[in-house]
Amino acid sequence: MSSASFSQKCVLSGSWKSSVGCKMVVSELSEAGVFSGSYLSAAMAPKADRLPSRLHGIQHGASLTEQPTFGFTVKWQFSESPPDSMSVFVGQCFVDDQGEETLQTMWLLRQEVGSPGADWEATRVGTNVFTRFKGQNMGESMRSDGAR
Amino acid sequence: MSSASFSQKCVLSGSWKSSVGCKMVVSELSEAGVFSGSYLSAAMAPKADRLPSRLHGIQHGASLTEQPTFGFTVKWQFSESPPDSMSVFVGQCFVDDQGEETLQTMWLLRQEVGSPGADWEATRVGTNVFTRFKGQNMGESMRSDGAR
Amino acid sequence: MSSASFSQKCVLSGSWKSSVGCKMVVSELSEAGVFSGSYLSAAMAPKADRLPSRLHGIQHGASLTEQPTFGFTVKWQFSESPPDSMSVFVGQCFVDDQGEETLQTMWLLRQEVGSPGADWEATRVGTNVFTRFKGQNMGESMRSDGAR
Amino acid sequence: MSSASFSQKCVLSGSWKSSVGCKMVVSELSEAGVFSGSYLSAAMAPKADRLPSRLHGIQHGASLTEQPTFGFTVKWQFSESPPDSMSVFVGQCFVDDQGEETLQTMWLLRQEVGSPGADWEATRVGTNVFTRFKGQNMGESMRSDGAR
Repeated sequence: MSSASFSQKCVLSGSWKSSVGCKMVVSELSEAGVFSGSYLSAAMAPKADRLPSRLHGIQHGASLTEQPTFGFTVKWQFSESPPDSMSVFVGQCFVDDQGEETLQTMWLLRQEVGSPGADWEATRVGTNVFTRFKGQNMGESMRSDGAR
Repeated sequence: MSSASFSQKCVLSGSWKSSVGCKMVVSELSEAGVFSGSYLSAAMAPKADRLPSRLHGIQHGASLTEQPTFGFTVKWQFSESPPDSMSVFVGQCFVDDQGEETLQTMWLLRQEVGSPGADWEATRVGTNVFTRFKGQNMGESMRSDGAR
Repeated sequence: MSSASFSQKCVLSGSWKSSVGCKMVVSELSEAGVFSGSYLSAAMAPKADRLPSRLHGIQHGASLTEQPTFGFTVKWQFSESPPDSMSVFVGQCFVDDQGEETLQTMWLLRQEVGSPGADWEATRVGTNVFTRFKGQNMGESMRSDGAR
Repeated sequence: MSSASFSQKCVLSGSWKSSVGCKMVVSELSEAGVFSGSYLSAAMAPKADRLPSRLHGIQHGASLTEQPTFGFTVKWQFSESPPDSMSVFVGQCFVDDQGEETLQTMWLLRQEVGSPGADWEATRVGTNVFTRFKGQNMGESMRSDGAR
């Protein structure tokens, strides 16, 4: 899977880590740019409760542009169940002179609320920056869910 | 497809319209809540240039909660090609006393920019509210892409 | 203060209410467009704990453009003290054919967090729409703080 | 003005620079935490067109909390006049073990649009991080506007 980082830049397939301790593994892309994968957030859950969460998204024509945009959804999954929540990320892949890829993203995090009257407070916003993960065992530790 | 609105509330499958003229058709959900579909924005493109754009997303366990959260990505597709752009939506389905379903969403719209230095201005944010589309021919007019 | 609604459109001075039960009173604008005022949120606090909160902002040259943009900060103030929080609103005033003014706004709400590691979850985002308040006693009920 | 960085941490008064080339000078705070100042954005305008823009905001009780939240509005001012635009920033000041202050902010940037139908695309969102500016002449170069 890490061969993606040698062959073609800015195809999302492979393993990524973020500056705030998030990790994700992205599958091969379909012809239309659709991908799935799994996401692990250090920040969102206590250690014992960290399960890989499923992600699903689309990348713009990676064969046509060098710095493509993409978007994906993460369906959060915790062993103890808080109110359901969902994140969406949208971003672009940039490649620097050394060939290093960076995913600049912004995200929205939505928590389930009880009624439309509480809708106003349901959505958080933020940024996250990802770089290629070059260790070996991320796929291993996140396989349980990513393979489903 | 509109049978969804009679049987089970707040499963995203079916046809939806928004207050600002957007329309979308969502496929049957997989067991894991994954769906695809197509999206048509009246606002984003001149009339001649409106093509249905592919969407892809996940809904939280619709069988377990009555007002589930969801997220999806839209890969914009125009006949004339502006810089690539992507939207992500995150939201929750609410059902009122009459059984009417409303999708309250917030979105991010990302445009492709030339370099990391222009990243700061790449992302727009907004809200959109969807209700069931009860006309008959939305699936028809949007089938060309949704079927891919 | 309500004379503003007869004389000149889209000067923020006066009383406004939002669709979700928020109310605000805005002072006369300075020559540079600076204003202050007070804000009351039905949603953010239990009834007993609702105090008017101070707001402070700037409007773009209301004498030069018919539908000016504006921005303001609200410093939340509750009788019982939760973590400090701040909101910022940015928007534009639109006038319809009947002369009705509408303030279309988006906001960010920031809560105080204990450390930079919790910064990612500190900010909420949403929209709010205001129209002129035509009742008589808003200024009265909100004067206690606005006058400071 | 730079004496603020020696005496009391996380009072916004003084000079700040951001990672993307923005600079701001903030006045003394009033007792209620109100401040004004000027802001210079490297990113938003071509070099010839950079004028300091007025800012206005509020900080939460800096005397009571060590890492206070704040919010402010920037009224953009360019020598050539594009559509009016406004930014609002909301954030929190963090102090690390070495006493270095960092302002973590999120912002919304609103551009004037012609009608409510274009409102959906008017607002951008992003982040910005500021640290104390330790050079000497920022106040000088930005005084023209800040003094008004």
